[in-house]
Amino acid sequence: VGVIEHMENWPQQLPWAFHMNLPAVLLPPLPTNSAEELAEYAQQLQLLSQEAVKEAGYSFQLWVPLSMTAAAMEAWQFVASMANANNVGLLLQFETSPTTLDPLLYVSQQLHTLHNAIGCGPVMAVSIATNQFLTNKRGYPTLSKAQQWIAEYIMQRVGRTVRWLLQGTAAPTTTVAVLPHLQYLQHIRQRPSVTSLLDTRAGQDEADYLDALQKPLQPLGDHLGYATYEVFEKDPVKYQQYQAASRLALADLKDLASCKVLVVGAGRGPLVTGVLLAYQSLPVNERPDALQVVAVEKNPTAVLYLQSKLQQDPLWQGSSVVTIVQADLRSLAQEHTESADLVVSELLGSFGCNELSPECLDALLERCKPETISIPSNYTSHIAPVSSRHIHGKIVDQQAFYPDQGRAVGRQMAVETPYVVRTHAASQLYAEQECWSFAHPSPHNPTRFVSLEFGSDAGGGLASGAGYGAVDDKCASLPTAPDQPVVLTGLLGTFTTVLYKTVFLSTAPKHFSSGMYSWFPLYFPLNEPVHVPAGARVRTHVWRKTDQRRVWYEWSVAVRKGTDLLSTTAIHNSGGRSYHVALS
Amino acid sequence: VGVIEHMENWPQQLPWAFHMNLPAVLLPPLPTNSAEELAEYAQQLQLLSQEAVKEAGYSFQLWVPLSMTAAAMEAWQFVASMANANNVGLLLQFETSPTTLDPLLYVSQQLHTLHNAIGCGPVMAVSIATNQFLTNKRGYPTLSKAQQWIAEYIMQRVGRTVRWLLQGTAAPTTTVAVLPHLQYLQHIRQRPSVTSLLDTRAGQDEADYLDALQKPLQPLGDHLGYATYEVFEKDPVKYQQYQAASRLALADLKDLASCKVLVVGAGRGPLVTGVLLAYQSLPVNERPDALQVVAVEKNPTAVLYLQSKLQQDPLWQGSSVVTIVQADLRSLAQEHTESADLVVSELLGSFGCNELSPECLDALLERCKPETISIPSNYTSHIAPVSSRHIHGKIVDQQAFYPDQGRAVGRQMAVETPYVVRTHAASQLYAEQECWSFAHPSPHNPTRFVSLEFGSDAGGGLASGAGYGAVDDKCASLPTAPDQPVVLTGLLGTFTTVLYKTVFLSTAPKHFSSGMYSWFPLYFPLNEPVHVPAGARVRTHVWRKTDQRRVWYEWSVAVRKGTDLLSTTAIHNSGGRSYHVALS
Repeated sequence: VGVIEHMENWPQQLPWAFHMNLPAVLLPPLPTNSAEELAEYAQQLQLLSQEAVKEAGYSFQLWVPLSMTAAAMEAWQFVASMANANNVGLLLQFETSPTTLDPLLYVSQQLHTLHNAIGCGPVMAVSIATNQFLTNKRGYPTLSKAQQWIAEYIMQRVGRTVRWLLQGTAAPTTTVAVLPHLQYLQHIRQRPSVTSLLDTRAGQDEADYLDALQKPLQPLGDHLGYATYEVFEKDPVKYQQYQAASRLALADLKDLASCKVLVVGAGRGPLVTGVLLAYQSLPVNERPDALQVVAVEKNPTAVLYLQSKLQQDPLWQGSSVVTIVQADLRSLAQEHTESADLVVSELLGSFGCNELSPECLDALLERCKPETISIPSNYTSHIAPVSSRHIHGKIVDQQAFYPDQGRAVGRQMAVETPYVVRTHAASQLYAEQECWSFAHPSPHNPTRFVSLEFGSDAGGGLASGAGYGAVDDKCASLPTAPDQPVVLTGLLGTFTTVLYKTVFLSTAPKHFSSGMYSWFPLYFPLNEPVHVPAGARVRTHVWRKTDQRRVWYEWSVAVRKGTDLLSTTAIHNSGGRSYHVALS
Repeated sequence: VGVIEHMENWPQQLPWAFHMNLPAVLLPPLPTNSAEELAEYAQQLQLLSQEAVKEAGYSFQLWVPLSMTAAAMEAWQFVASMANANNVGLLLQFETSPTTLDPLLYVSQQLHTLHNAIGCGPVMAVSIATNQFLTNKRGYPTLSKAQQWIAEYIMQRVGRTVRWLLQGTAAPTTTVAVLPHLQYLQHIRQRPSVTSLLDTRAGQDEADYLDALQKPLQPLGDHLGYATYEVFEKDPVKYQQYQAASRLALADLKDLASCKVLVVGAGRGPLVTGVLLAYQSLPVNERPDALQVVAVEKNPTAVLYLQSKLQQDPLWQGSSVVTIVQADLRSLAQEHTESADLVVSELLGSFGCNELSPECLDALLERCKPETISIPSNYTSHIAPVSSRHIHGKIVDQQAFYPDQGRAVGRQMAVETPYVVRTHAASQLYAEQECWSFAHPSPHNPTRFVSLEFGSDAGGGLASGAGYGAVDDKCASLPTAPDQPVVLTGLLGTFTTVLYKTVFLSTAPKHFSSGMYSWFPLYFPLNEPVHVPAGARVRTHVWRKTDQRRVWYEWSVAVRKGTDLLSTTAIHNSGGRSYHVALS
């Protein structure tokens, strides 16, 4: 890492960093005297950033050093929005614990600031001075309890992507002198609270997906590939819950002697297997050998797989009768629909209703008996404002991509498309709220509109972390810290679903189904980052709209404080101009 | 004008309006119950606007009716930003004067609201109900003094572009019944306070320029055309002031017996004529027949004109010696520079320094004697935040234009280019402030940076009108009205210059040179409209930057209230990426 000591020297020093093939340069600290100086810093940073992208692309990084204080974060929010640069990250500098503040309150403040910084970052590195270490009884360096908590939190949140820098001042500056300090940090890294998040199989598998943008599925247009099915079938939670729900539903059927189950969108058959296992697990006297399972699938290659499965899998060849039908579930033959007692489907997307589950199941279930049970029974979309300058930058960069039509995406389309993303360098700003629900069987008006207000929520945002994974109870239990100004870059969509009665799945942090990895959140971008001062309230407007051919979302955000309207975005994706899900 | 009575009916009613070739449709009033309803209105308005542009282009207009109250304006600001539509204008509805409020305070409030509405408009029409008229002694309809003032103000500000609608409810709705009311409005239109603004030759001449975007000159690259010179030479103020300044300067020269005047950028020679007339106007004993005037001009066709002028104009053939030199003034031969006593130039642009006057004059004057006088002596750039959704919309539309390079301008370039524009459907929000100055002769560092704060300024914005023309003293003398939230769309650049000693020119409203029309303001766009709540402060950052080949401006705006940062724009035109003035 190179160092530029004075901002105005970058035109001389940056070429040297390129020449030396350095991966990053550390910039001087933000000025503290006046808004004018911050503006001048931002002006130089913007030029520097443009030059760096031109000469070295996005892999080269500019690091702005920032102390972990609310005031520093506020100054950075101003500079970052003025400079509007994608290749700038933060080097956070560990603060010395104050002796005058209640340690828990101090931890709460620092964690809020960190949460804020992760959104306004990305945080590329953390530096800690050797003289911030204490010495334990055996003479080894150690951190105070509060500092330990903070270091552990950083590792949990961004440990996979952050570098640690030890800055020695008192001790001799050889590597050996800081070795005990490094070992101590390594010791924190090995705590179960950290390894259980980062070093599990799931944690390792998702490493490639962190902050990666994925276009959401076109469920009726795309045919899934074999490998995709395989990955999702390994989810340790999802199919187990489907099986549990199926068991409850089967047990509730009046006449199991002649019952028929439709598995719609059967894919490679995991839900067929689940239904069969559920049936087998019922007490013997409750299962006359007469279960009919119809596996409905439109993807012809998946149908081939289902047919071979039927020939080879002993479970499928048991006493029940499995039938395979290649069809769009909306036009399934009357013979199957009119006699169905239970319909099992997995048409849910990252935002619940975004892969057309409502439309498809309504079309099917209105042709079934009124008492036909649907698994899932209902699902609810959730939304939360989220801060991620990192993801925002990636989305803005999408504008220059050329998809198959041969012309650039353009900014409007780039920022009006929701992306499936495993949020990482991101901070959910408030506890998520419910948007709307769909329940089956009962036909719907498929359009929805919701206006939700998010205000200071006493740590609900902090405890939600990056917006993917379960709420962090340790964070939730911290004392309330003063509200900080934040920068909003998008809305994060998740969902909860009741598969049947008490069997539940959730990607929303509040009730996250731990271990499940089948769905990442859906990120709705905002065209520009939106500033939210302390004490202000965010109002989101989200629409689910349809016409005869399409389903799409529109969204907008307004910020108010007291009666003042501070800002409002335009409505994104008006009329589905940039993104929709096709109904055919 | 067609009418859509319920917002949700537009898909049925809009095609009918197209079919009937109507120029506009009047939309239902804004809902008043909740922010949700306003959001739904905005969502429909955005769709409607897109559909109207697709079917009928920008000539077809959507009119939103709005009462002239601060609350209605605030609701409209929210809806307009959410809907982000360019083809929507306002139909303002006259309010009935309250009997409980001091009439002057009422007028002040209404004028502030109107000023606000003109920025958030465009205001396309004003409606007034016949029952808002009083009856005078002779039985004719008349308006209260306060209403008269308001009607007169509307005519002064937007009389050339607004329609008046009379809505009769009590009286029979035949045309004849409202004829006396129309005649009364016509009577206000004929007041000298209105006709002196709208019906003068200058007022008529500028009609085609209202809100029209002009690219600023590239003074060293472009050669002006004959017609352009001719138009500007007719300015009744500018050359008169140059002549007065020249007379003062000539009178101050030590030795008039052998003096030399350089007229640089002579064009078709109006300043040569001005200098000669100024010389003639000196007392006889002060002007030995020895004035040398060197007309320096780089434009070859202008040089041809100067040569014919020299052969035919008796004034030019008088006792003085006029020499014509075709040259870039920066490389003028030493024989002319070293002996020059007075340099007269008119290199000023709409923002003062934006046509490279500092660079050109510095290059010339450093090769002259230290005591050489420059006309102009100094000039100061001014700036003021301005509100104009109308101009903003036009600028955004520029993005789709194809200039000579064969590819679309694109949004970034469109919104990062300053435009010369005779602001009309625009409201200057605060009294303008000084950015920076250049004084001659004395070489400069040509770069500048200024950070200015604009806050509630007790009517200074109102009195500045559209930002072009003199301050309206009648408005300035009104009692202070409560601060209203406004929407900022750009910065308006103007300038003042001291030609010599007491001789002064100004396009800044505060000291506007009445009658002068040579310069329209320079409008610096903002990428998106910026909301400024009541009591908030706007901080502008403006840079004048140079490198070896170019001069350009960068600009940014931040809004704060108390210590809260409400929003900040990115720095526009960073590094001159979208717009610059070439130095060669």
